[in-house]
Amino acid sequence: MKDQERPLLQVLEDYKAAVLARDVDAFVALYDDAVRVFDMWGRWSYSGIAAWRVVVASWFQSHGSERVVVEFGDAQVRAASDIAVIHVFVVYRGISAEGAELRSMTNRMTLALWRTAGLWKIIHEHTSAPVDHGTAKVMLSCSSHG
Amino acid sequence: MKDQERPLLQVLEDYKAAVLARDVDAFVALYDDAVRVFDMWGRWSYSGIAAWRVVVASWFQSHGSERVVVEFGDAQVRAASDIAVIHVFVVYRGISAEGAELRSMTNRMTLALWRTAGLWKIIHEHTSAPVDHGTAKVMLSCSSHG
Repeated sequence: MKDQERPLLQVLEDYKAAVLARDVDAFVALYDDAVRVFDMWGRWSYSGIAAWRVVVASWFQSHGSERVVVEFGDAQVRAASDIAVIHVFVVYRGISAEGAELRSMTNRMTLALWRTAGLWKIIHEHTSAPVDHGTAKVMLSCSSHG
Repeated sequence: MKDQERPLLQVLEDYKAAVLARDVDAFVALYDDAVRVFDMWGRWSYSGIAAWRVVVASWFQSHGSERVVVEFGDAQVRAASDIAVIHVFVVYRGISAEGAELRSMTNRMTLALWRTAGLWKIIHEHTSAPVDHGTAKVMLSCSSHG
């Protein structure tokens, strides 16, 4: 790992920790105020941290009694000067209070980051999963054991 | 427009021209050999220009007697040193030999670019459209007049 990648991969660790703790403030602090998000679900884009915060708070609330454990795989990082890009696969696992895996979902995620006042902030996020040609349905590699 | 954005927006113009001309070589020349693509359709990712070229050639062949006109909207560009990110909405319109619009599809696109030997090349592309929560179907803002 190159030295310049370390603080960028830390953003992924902070993302995981904030989701597990359902900590809206910690999660939103990863993003720039002017972020534009292309989220997988329901809407073409969200502009600005206020709009994104509403989505995040609602997502965390939906976890109910489950914990959501995030796992990143095959991260590719490019950074130069004060801009960086990460593209990575993400698995979200819903874990019951008893520790059983209830569901899992795979996404693809692209993050663009901007270093401002020495800190890397996400200025753009794009999440998706591929769509089946025949059915137009999204492929989630989703397994439900609930 | 900042001066540094001009060659990056030119990449979008070159993309349009290559699709309209169905010029596989010109299209593929926009990408770095080590590109990783998160394409909207059918597969989680494509790694390397050879795999991506197959997809592009097959896409252009599928146009048949239609021309595909690409339109970009609301492009946001960030560049620093030798790395850049563009996120943008894309409309693909299928136009008949007689000039009638047969279909159109909207996508969201994120491009990461890397300047190598003075030229900007796409090292990562991510395209998608949002997915409806209820049906798990992709929303294409698709209108068919065929």
